[in-house]
Amino acid sequence: MNNNTRVVLSLPVATRLCGKKVLLVGSGEVAISRLEKLIPTGCQIYLVTGDIEDDLDDITCTSSGNKRFETILKKWFVPPSKLGNAKITATGTSNDDIYTYPNWHTNCGKIYQIIKRNFKFQDLTMFMNSTSNKNTSSINKSEFSALVERTNDINLLKSYLGDNWQVILVCIDDIKLSELIYYKAKLLLGPQIMINVADVPPLCDFYFGSNFTLGEVPTVDTDAIRISDIDINSNNSSDDITLDNISCVPCIQILISSNGLSPRFTSLLKNDIISKYGSSSNIHIQESCVKLGELRRRIRDINNTNSDNSNGGKELISYRMQWIKYVTDQFGVKYCHLMDVDNLVKLYKKMLIDDSMSLEFPANMVQAFGNLSP
Amino acid sequence: MNNNTRVVLSLPVATRLCGKKVLLVGSGEVAISRLEKLIPTGCQIYLVTGDIEDDLDDITCTSSGNKRFETILKKWFVPPSKLGNAKITATGTSNDDIYTYPNWHTNCGKIYQIIKRNFKFQDLTMFMNSTSNKNTSSINKSEFSALVERTNDINLLKSYLGDNWQVILVCIDDIKLSELIYYKAKLLLGPQIMINVADVPPLCDFYFGSNFTLGEVPTVDTDAIRISDIDINSNNSSDDITLDNISCVPCIQILISSNGLSPRFTSLLKNDIISKYGSSSNIHIQESCVKLGELRRRIRDINNTNSDNSNGGKELISYRMQWIKYVTDQFGVKYCHLMDVDNLVKLYKKMLIDDSMSLEFPANMVQAFGNLSP
Repeated sequence: MNNNTRVVLSLPVATRLCGKKVLLVGSGEVAISRLEKLIPTGCQIYLVTGDIEDDLDDITCTSSGNKRFETILKKWFVPPSKLGNAKITATGTSNDDIYTYPNWHTNCGKIYQIIKRNFKFQDLTMFMNSTSNKNTSSINKSEFSALVERTNDINLLKSYLGDNWQVILVCIDDIKLSELIYYKAKLLLGPQIMINVADVPPLCDFYFGSNFTLGEVPTVDTDAIRISDIDINSNNSSDDITLDNISCVPCIQILISSNGLSPRFTSLLKNDIISKYGSSSNIHIQESCVKLGELRRRIRDINNTNSDNSNGGKELISYRMQWIKYVTDQFGVKYCHLMDVDNLVKLYKKMLIDDSMSLEFPANMVQAFGNLSP
Repeated sequence: MNNNTRVVLSLPVATRLCGKKVLLVGSGEVAISRLEKLIPTGCQIYLVTGDIEDDLDDITCTSSGNKRFETILKKWFVPPSKLGNAKITATGTSNDDIYTYPNWHTNCGKIYQIIKRNFKFQDLTMFMNSTSNKNTSSINKSEFSALVERTNDINLLKSYLGDNWQVILVCIDDIKLSELIYYKAKLLLGPQIMINVADVPPLCDFYFGSNFTLGEVPTVDTDAIRISDIDINSNNSSDDITLDNISCVPCIQILISSNGLSPRFTSLLKNDIISKYGSSSNIHIQESCVKLGELRRRIRDINNTNSDNSNGGKELISYRMQWIKYVTDQFGVKYCHLMDVDNLVKLYKKMLIDDSMSLEFPANMVQAFGNLSP
């Protein structure tokens, strides 16, 4: 290999975006593919687009001249009731038309806000001086930094948390403007802001690759949700969203990336993997995740009941992890969906308490603790 | 489904970290697993750890009392020459022992810097007032913002770019300290900074999941690289790193995440996928990526030669993409490695130029343009 060749891989990660603010510039085909991936994450999407031909005073009963934008509106913005009394009216001041989805929440399956005009650079700093950042705007930067470094009061620190863009996605044809957005965002928000400019690899801090889910694809069934279902009193501040109140859907997410080398090949590989592990295969991903999730939760509860906190529960955690690893390995990818969770929980209790954290498992785990058909 | 259940998926992405700064706090087992994933990305790792038992004045011929830290040193920090004349001596002032890898570059397979002491909150703002940010520190924040918003001069904007942490990874046993690091980092660097606190899901902006490569695993062969191979004059500033001078290794990266539901099941699935697509399978990932990468590059070159720029080459790009999609699909996951690239390039030229962008392909593509054994 040439010495000047830089051997680099990406770091593939599963980004948690629930309740976080995402700026999406553009409304073309690529923007639609981004929305398909973003909506199920529960992020708060702000879509900025001037690419709308007709006058959009009232977005409910719309029939835009732009086919693609109509798709976006119907799928991810018009309230499912589709009734005149639930219409969304522009709320912008000056010449901006700003449409905010009524009572938006993280699993309503909708775009939070559509800003109907061309992108402005001020959009990058939309939250810098907003009221949500009031705690930080009143004192100067270095005083604030000193204060943060000094205090060890978690609640005080949490109370200072403000909002900002978590991710910026640019999906427009104008490469010159895209480049300006990229560099200005880096300067205004810090170099750590994650940006993806579609089709311009040097302006991508991350690639989307081919990604897909195995198990029930948990797209939110928007037609099944009615405005009346939504808790109007929920304020959706990012503060009240923690993993404690998120129930994950039982599915596996997979990302395949060739680091831009061959997007089409990754897509073929994706189809091949789906044929081998998807719903039409003999691997039962969803049922396996349900069983394993339940087993994990229940033996964790047993641990919590039996922990005396004398050593912070470390020994118990370690035992539980060894135990579940062994059991999962015994059942393997093919048989986890057949686990008899009740009986496994009983076994765990026995081994943990009666047998004093034994790791001597019964023989033939799958036969003994699986619901095999006779 | 319960209305209060938040249905959320992650957004799986391939993060590009080449040349970017990553703070890793801790040196235990989890830190080692992080290093294994980080090193091949070419990121600039700063490892902060006080968990070193012996006195580490000279890091070359080390024999640390701490087994795990010794692993880290040997694999990712001691120069491969292992000679006394390449020893790394602490460069820290005050009581800090700071070791910087000599002539570090993005594919040397090494940690950039080891800071041998407990984490300090000042580590979070290490680059805020550094010389690399000199352009921004001399004027105040709002003046700078106004300047950035006003100018459309890309080179001027690029000249202002500074450094900062791109990702912060906390792998220590102290949950209280981990929580303080998380919130202070968010306040000091902005809420968009990506943080992962090992084993504390609510303090994770992203999960690692199970990730792996198919095709040649491109771990840098550190023993094959000698200090003398390294270009001492390269300054490795993040400016000169673009995708243009990065050659990707021909492999596919895959991430499997159960969003924390069952890490062990994702690991089983990973092994199953490796058995079906890995080097011992009949799918030739690496050769396929090489062939497809070459084909893509060569037909892009043909496009560039034949583009008159009259319509920005858009029509040509669209033709090229349809063409390669068809060809890749014909060969499929199983046969891409058998592509006769020379003959396919000839076919592309003919169809593009002689046949005026025809999409009428010959029959039996695989038989006609594959190097099938007789």
